[in-house]
Amino acid sequence: MPDQPIDHAGLEPLSFDTCLELLASAHLGRIGFQADGELVILPVNHVMDGQDVVFRTSRGSKLAAAGEQGLVAFEADAYDQETRSGWSVLVTGRATVVYEDPEIQRLSQLGLDHWAANVQHPFWVRIRPTSVTGRRTPLR
Amino acid sequence: MPDQPIDHAGLEPLSFDTCLELLASAHLGRIGFQADGELVILPVNHVMDGQDVVFRTSRGSKLAAAGEQGLVAFEADAYDQETRSGWSVLVTGRATVVYEDPEIQRLSQLGLDHWAANVQHPFWVRIRPTSVTGRRTPLR
Repeated sequence: MPDQPIDHAGLEPLSFDTCLELLASAHLGRIGFQADGELVILPVNHVMDGQDVVFRTSRGSKLAAAGEQGLVAFEADAYDQETRSGWSVLVTGRATVVYEDPEIQRLSQLGLDHWAANVQHPFWVRIRPTSVTGRRTPLR
Repeated sequence: MPDQPIDHAGLEPLSFDTCLELLASAHLGRIGFQADGELVILPVNHVMDGQDVVFRTSRGSKLAAAGEQGLVAFEADAYDQETRSGWSVLVTGRATVVYEDPEIQRLSQLGLDHWAANVQHPFWVRIRPTSVTGRRTPLR
């Protein structure tokens, strides 16, 4: 087996396509953004719409404000405690709230899971990536 | 059963003690910080040292810089896809790199799992919380 490229931490960088595949395979990710000067990280169920990350949240206004001021981050990962192996993908991009009814109807068909059926998530948010990077533990 | 208090999203806020218990029960969390003007979120295996979150990373210098400039965030969560129930805890605080050998030796005894045995994690980082908040889906 040829040597795999690894980064300074000993992790294997992932290709853009592999990152998108892994993002699509995950049901849960975390959105990170600045709100009132504080860094917030919250779990969300997401779905991929092409290269965009889409999810629903109650924090539409805060995310929109964060998106206007700068970039937000989205992270998904998986870790197998037994084999101590895993991957993570980090998306950086602009967040926008989706208000258009036809677009919301289309997004509703993408099979988005819900973080708890009885939790209120009125806002649809789209993250358009400016960067997508990922790493995984080297295969042994 | 008495009504549970819920927040604007329909989630039940967790007490400080419950947040600490849940943080201690999780093997994996995510550290979020600003680096070179970008928001970074990375998975780390962590352990609790009292109320502090402790983990190892290759990003010591970036985290130290982030910790000098402002607060970092740490998040852990669990989500059961079948029952669509879950919890998340968010820690905001100051990150410092631990350089003292006796302290590193003590932290080494706390049972920290490693994100991949063959990955290089030379820096021990401690997050001293300034705020700890958590939410879970209401029990049904």
